[in-house]
Amino acid sequence: MRTKVAIIGAGPSGLLLGQLLARAGIDNIVLERRTPDYVLSRIRAGVLEQGMVDLLDEAGVGARLHREGLVHEGFALSFGGAGHRIDLKRLSGGKVVTVYGQTEVTKDLMEARAAAGLTTIYEAESVTLIDWETSSPRVRWVKDGLAQELTCDFIAGCDGFHGVSRATVPSTAIRNFERVYPFGWLGILSETPPVDHELIYVNHPDGFALCSMRNPMLSRYYVQCRFDDKVDDWSDERFWDALKSRLHGEAAERLVTGPSIEKSIAPLRSFVAEPMRFGNLFLAGDAAHIVPPTGAKGLNLAASDVRYLSSALIEHYDTGSAAALDRYSEQALARVWKAERFSWWMTSILHRFPETGGFGQRIQQAELDYLVGSEAAMTALAENYVGLPY
Amino acid sequence: MRTKVAIIGAGPSGLLLGQLLARAGIDNIVLERRTPDYVLSRIRAGVLEQGMVDLLDEAGVGARLHREGLVHEGFALSFGGAGHRIDLKRLSGGKVVTVYGQTEVTKDLMEARAAAGLTTIYEAESVTLIDWETSSPRVRWVKDGLAQELTCDFIAGCDGFHGVSRATVPSTAIRNFERVYPFGWLGILSETPPVDHELIYVNHPDGFALCSMRNPMLSRYYVQCRFDDKVDDWSDERFWDALKSRLHGEAAERLVTGPSIEKSIAPLRSFVAEPMRFGNLFLAGDAAHIVPPTGAKGLNLAASDVRYLSSALIEHYDTGSAAALDRYSEQALARVWKAERFSWWMTSILHRFPETGGFGQRIQQAELDYLVGSEAAMTALAENYVGLPY
Repeated sequence: MRTKVAIIGAGPSGLLLGQLLARAGIDNIVLERRTPDYVLSRIRAGVLEQGMVDLLDEAGVGARLHREGLVHEGFALSFGGAGHRIDLKRLSGGKVVTVYGQTEVTKDLMEARAAAGLTTIYEAESVTLIDWETSSPRVRWVKDGLAQELTCDFIAGCDGFHGVSRATVPSTAIRNFERVYPFGWLGILSETPPVDHELIYVNHPDGFALCSMRNPMLSRYYVQCRFDDKVDDWSDERFWDALKSRLHGEAAERLVTGPSIEKSIAPLRSFVAEPMRFGNLFLAGDAAHIVPPTGAKGLNLAASDVRYLSSALIEHYDTGSAAALDRYSEQALARVWKAERFSWWMTSILHRFPETGGFGQRIQQAELDYLVGSEAAMTALAENYVGLPY
Repeated sequence: MRTKVAIIGAGPSGLLLGQLLARAGIDNIVLERRTPDYVLSRIRAGVLEQGMVDLLDEAGVGARLHREGLVHEGFALSFGGAGHRIDLKRLSGGKVVTVYGQTEVTKDLMEARAAAGLTTIYEAESVTLIDWETSSPRVRWVKDGLAQELTCDFIAGCDGFHGVSRATVPSTAIRNFERVYPFGWLGILSETPPVDHELIYVNHPDGFALCSMRNPMLSRYYVQCRFDDKVDDWSDERFWDALKSRLHGEAAERLVTGPSIEKSIAPLRSFVAEPMRFGNLFLAGDAAHIVPPTGAKGLNLAASDVRYLSSALIEHYDTGSAAALDRYSEQALARVWKAERFSWWMTSILHRFPETGGFGQRIQQAELDYLVGSEAAMTALAENYVGLPY
């Protein structure tokens, strides 16, 4: 088998890259270890920057998003017993975010890929990347017990934090930066009306909470929990009690509870691998970096990597120039680190960190007080939240 | 002896408070453990916010400051081999800072106090505060071997971090918040022209540096050093080498070196005691809080405490109302904590912290890159640097 770009991973990064390349006439094959249903079952992020929405439009998969996505012009910070709205649209000069689940983005991309007759190989086992440092990289895998091989010009590693792409690179060629946070997020989905039409980020002495949603009858809520908590430690009742006690009064009163239809605990991690290119292997999205979910940057960063990588590949096939490919790692990392900083900062000001003690808590409180009273500080928050320029 | 307000400490806070009260016709006596020469020999901060300049004008001691002080409309951040100017005046809507040494402020206040014939008792030993929780506080001390006593309405504790005022309060009545940084500042004075007419704050892999000045032929420079370094570890040559290697090229080339005329090491500490009022004892300035010097907030915070305290005392004597005195602690602490946050943040982004490792260093770099590219983030920096509103 032969293609121009072998894409490892059929999550949103891989599928979006495949779609953008295909629309530019560049052959690609997507390989995925799991089944489509498994990929779609993962409940993840749901806040899209304008830049990501534009890219989905460019890829021709924006129709349902514009129909069903919820445009958010602001969100609230809740602390000290009161809510404070951050008016994203006004502060950012007209920019907004769109609430639309990662699962829905993936589904739209899958359908578009199928409609265009492009090849996606699911349940590809034992994927191995070979000769990625040369001009003829190969990918080998096993499907239905049969060994297969694909020759290509480039490999795009879009296979997430635990994927084979980054793991293929010798550790001497890569530098990892990491911070693991001493807590987790317990998240639930419930078929109840969201407590507010906008997101509420909560700083409370008991810990962080977040009120989000997927649609007008599907709420997504989180509370900060211990990093070693188990889902079974958290009955629905315990969850709702914790959430209600962390929300400021007026929001707590509006909260509608109900049975959870999904409940899971996510660890919080900051991670960056440098560089993002090794010969003709390019990493994109979670394969190269992880942000804690506070600030909703993970999926958006994956999209910005794909934006840089797709346009660099298109330039290469159009003009023969490798200039944009040579710039990819540096360009992507500059935006990655700014989003890492923002996500680390949002996490820092909103969670309870046992190790920072009383001084750390007062600094948090002073930062939040300052933030909601300063037009400049709110503008800095807003411009990061809606997405820094590419 | 009897007075209305007994002021403990003849540093800038105590003298400024005394001056403002005296001009409002409120008797006060200042007690100081040291000699005037000792007080004047301490080389400290030198960057005054506009609000502090205004307060010195109000106290009638602004003449020399306006003649000799250097008005600064900006400063530079140096990192990654280049300098980036922060245009304070433009970003803050016209505000500036004034470079004028704390020693000069103290000298002007001393002279004004002497000219007005107000009582300052220097070399007051074994100062003890008594009955400060009642309406007739007393202060006892020993001077020239004789025990003395003063009865007053209020005591103002302006005697610094190590003073007797805060130490008098039972530890059960006070809550301390503290962070000690794992490094110090080695500072020198040298009779050389400053490397630039504005301050330069430097982030370098070897550590922080700061280029400041007192006048056009008196430079004040600092480099981050180990917290356990001794002054004797740092010859002038070692100091200049360190400073030069941390400055970006263009500034390093302009640096004029010479013998140091003062050299000292200061530890960096964040500290706040809550509350700032105990009965009729009020704390102001370093007696209640310490900031690390990055951001130049220490002296300015002392001035803002004095501003709140003097107007509360004046209101009390004018109208008999205790309302402003009752608000003092909360009002002062709100501004204190914002300045603590700012000083902690400036310290965090500019120094090398061994414990944050590679991730922390990349976050610092991303924050600086973001900062100098974002109008909003620079505005937030500028509004804090020139002084948040009272």
